[in-house]
Amino acid sequence: MNMDKSGNFSEWYNGIIKEAELCDLRYNIKGFIVIMPWAMRSINLIYDVYERELQECGHFPAFFPSLVPEKSFLAEKEHVEGFTPEVMWVTEAGGKKLEERYALKPTGETSIYPMYALWVNGLSDLPVKIYQRGWVWRYETKATKPFVRGREFLWIEAHDVFASSGQAKEQVAEDISIAKEVVWRQLGIPFIFFRRPQWDKFAGADDTFAADTLMPDGKVLQIATTHLLGQHFSKAYGIRYMDEKNEMKHAWQTCYGPGISRIYAASVAVHGDSKGMVLPFCIAPAQVVVIPIMRKGNEEKIFDAAKALKQRLAGKMRVELDARDLTPGFKFNHWELRGVPIRIELGERDLASESAVLVTRDDGKKRSVKLSELEGEVAREGAKLDARLKDKSSKLFKSALDSAKSEEEMAEKVNAGKIVEVPFCSEQKDGEGCAKAIKEKYSIDVRGTVCSFFDSEEVALEAKSPKGEKCVHCRKPAKVMMYVSRQY
Amino acid sequence: MNMDKSGNFSEWYNGIIKEAELCDLRYNIKGFIVIMPWAMRSINLIYDVYERELQECGHFPAFFPSLVPEKSFLAEKEHVEGFTPEVMWVTEAGGKKLEERYALKPTGETSIYPMYALWVNGLSDLPVKIYQRGWVWRYETKATKPFVRGREFLWIEAHDVFASSGQAKEQVAEDISIAKEVVWRQLGIPFIFFRRPQWDKFAGADDTFAADTLMPDGKVLQIATTHLLGQHFSKAYGIRYMDEKNEMKHAWQTCYGPGISRIYAASVAVHGDSKGMVLPFCIAPAQVVVIPIMRKGNEEKIFDAAKALKQRLAGKMRVELDARDLTPGFKFNHWELRGVPIRIELGERDLASESAVLVTRDDGKKRSVKLSELEGEVAREGAKLDARLKDKSSKLFKSALDSAKSEEEMAEKVNAGKIVEVPFCSEQKDGEGCAKAIKEKYSIDVRGTVCSFFDSEEVALEAKSPKGEKCVHCRKPAKVMMYVSRQY
Repeated sequence: MNMDKSGNFSEWYNGIIKEAELCDLRYNIKGFIVIMPWAMRSINLIYDVYERELQECGHFPAFFPSLVPEKSFLAEKEHVEGFTPEVMWVTEAGGKKLEERYALKPTGETSIYPMYALWVNGLSDLPVKIYQRGWVWRYETKATKPFVRGREFLWIEAHDVFASSGQAKEQVAEDISIAKEVVWRQLGIPFIFFRRPQWDKFAGADDTFAADTLMPDGKVLQIATTHLLGQHFSKAYGIRYMDEKNEMKHAWQTCYGPGISRIYAASVAVHGDSKGMVLPFCIAPAQVVVIPIMRKGNEEKIFDAAKALKQRLAGKMRVELDARDLTPGFKFNHWELRGVPIRIELGERDLASESAVLVTRDDGKKRSVKLSELEGEVAREGAKLDARLKDKSSKLFKSALDSAKSEEEMAEKVNAGKIVEVPFCSEQKDGEGCAKAIKEKYSIDVRGTVCSFFDSEEVALEAKSPKGEKCVHCRKPAKVMMYVSRQY
Repeated sequence: MNMDKSGNFSEWYNGIIKEAELCDLRYNIKGFIVIMPWAMRSINLIYDVYERELQECGHFPAFFPSLVPEKSFLAEKEHVEGFTPEVMWVTEAGGKKLEERYALKPTGETSIYPMYALWVNGLSDLPVKIYQRGWVWRYETKATKPFVRGREFLWIEAHDVFASSGQAKEQVAEDISIAKEVVWRQLGIPFIFFRRPQWDKFAGADDTFAADTLMPDGKVLQIATTHLLGQHFSKAYGIRYMDEKNEMKHAWQTCYGPGISRIYAASVAVHGDSKGMVLPFCIAPAQVVVIPIMRKGNEEKIFDAAKALKQRLAGKMRVELDARDLTPGFKFNHWELRGVPIRIELGERDLASESAVLVTRDDGKKRSVKLSELEGEVAREGAKLDARLKDKSSKLFKSALDSAKSEEEMAEKVNAGKIVEVPFCSEQKDGEGCAKAIKEKYSIDVRGTVCSFFDSEEVALEAKSPKGEKCVHCRKPAKVMMYVSRQY
């Protein structure tokens, strides 16, 4: 593989998926993909990291059914309207037509909240902080793209219940900080957490916050969302608690959905280069590949040494030995394409000097390392590689941020792949007209007001008003500064 | 909770599930349960152990869709006949009737094997060793029981492909040895791996091997199966490879299904006692609970010390601090019911002597331990507790094994909760009549011939013929020694 990522990202991405065997698109239901081992191993590692962070913030795992009776599904009006067009229905079972249809859940609220209504009674039952690892189904009508948009997708959904609106808001801030820890600090994927405009929020929420990263084609990808649900669902499902004054109150809720397969897609897209994938150290299925460099006569000696080395490293890192009967060059390409962070070459001369050649995937740099110091060197070089990936991705992301005062300037910059800040009349319902007009004329999407940048501590749940600016479209006084871009 | 397990197991089990908050049965679709955090945390730990072992034996994770087009579902005749009565069908999506129904997969073969047909071409593609962690759906008509039988259940399924029948048989032996490592050595649950009689095998298999453990009510529970699929599916789905002579050959397949929620049910049932659950160390969500023993005046000092101790232990084990404003006695019961292996009590006198009281859950023994030595003591006592659980469970299991020569003796012993070995006419189709007669007359089930015991290295894929014995039912010469029991 030798392909320019920025030149034709879509071709590059589809090429990687096929060549590195990340998924198979030939499953015979449209929009359903088969995730192959190399991708699934990284996805499981992303789950591990995300679940660990959620648990450290007091969340516990649980399992709620995949099917939802139509009755439960219909309880919250806005939610129903938002999701019904995408629902797949089970109507037959055991050879008979069911009396009631069951929805394959497109998201967990309707499966989970009837239970919360049973579990929450008093203040001592709060907060509830529970997550589910799994997959859901949405009968998408938009074009599907592997790991990015499908009719069955892998995610985590955390559903929290609180006694006050303030605690719910704190949870949203915590959700955002978890995303920063996992997606930015560990995986090196930059993003902006936006507060979505009111016309683009989750069906049934008061407010939606969502992380957008930038793909190499200049389109943003939403990789996680967290919603202030207010009391919409607690009223619809009867989630109530008795407060200090013995009064029954409706609870305040949040839900948080990191898209695990989308985060994987972003890590492939953001870090990859013309040779293929470049995986951050913590999600590489193999962090190190050991390649014996053999020539006629020394095969056994070199192979034995490589095998011994692999076994020595195995308890301390994820390591593979490539002992196939193929040329070193073929193997180099094979593992570079798959993004293995560190390659260790072991040949006759290395062995004689009790050393090995260590090659880092991102910069291709080779260095000779003492065999006795390999564990430490691998850890150090892995950390350095991660730091370089972050440095590169954050520079690129920041260089894509721009601003514009006029519609023409905005369009020009978005066309050049930028995420552009513009004055906008309103984030409330009355701003929707301008958003539609921009979408229609330029295919540009309004993403929202900035809530938090990936590398900043600041979190602003409310938008700030600019002074003396005019809406980029209607030229009325602007109430907010809004970011716009193209989107997936 | 104070309840005799053997006296009324069903009441005990239902009591535990409710009191320890393992699952909620009030979800409003029959046979679908909600798994609550305390159970889900252990189930995730069982997944971790099982997946690690599968990976060490060369398996990789993958993800295959939950839905199967009717066409694919119908490819293997016997399989279809076996599973169709239990299938739930998706027939509507996006507000429209679908052109083709989609089955919610009751097991993965029909979802996976069309892909294997694409992936396997030559010898270098073999073996395929892939597993999926997840859940499947079966519209059960039998009575459901939490974690034991439901219409949606959690498991792992591994699907392997080989070039020869011999390699497939070796895989079955490996599957059995993985079950021994996880289910017996780590979780202390004894079992027999049976070769099921021909009339009771997996729909579409040549041979089915299944692990049965013994529940406290004298009924056996199948917790894992592995199947020699032969070439049935490779012929139905076209999974072929080119051999050394450039001839296209159909592959040989196996599939392996450890029932993760059933293994959890077994660990609750086998190890529990009159006070509640007793969890093996490796699957306890909290291995240690620290309980400060406070009295008026020293609250702050004791709480601070307990908190510091919890933080010190936290990186090395799964530990919780119970700092609730409740009596120590209430807390002891709370955590005993939930099966936490080790309790650490920290009071004024302990602190003065730089020690703590360590209590083991299974035997209730208390000992004073130096604070500085706690990490080591916890690890040692955890291992000893596991050893005691295994000693107890294996003795009980072995004491339940018996044999009989006549139908009456067999019935008497099975009624007393035994798993009874009897001479049986045949494990082939011609033995089915006797099995049905026994089932009808005594509600006794024929489980199969012994393939391997949990604590033995021996594996016998073929049944051995007894000499001079007569079938317990028809009195014809017996071809096999068969175990019978009551079953879940």
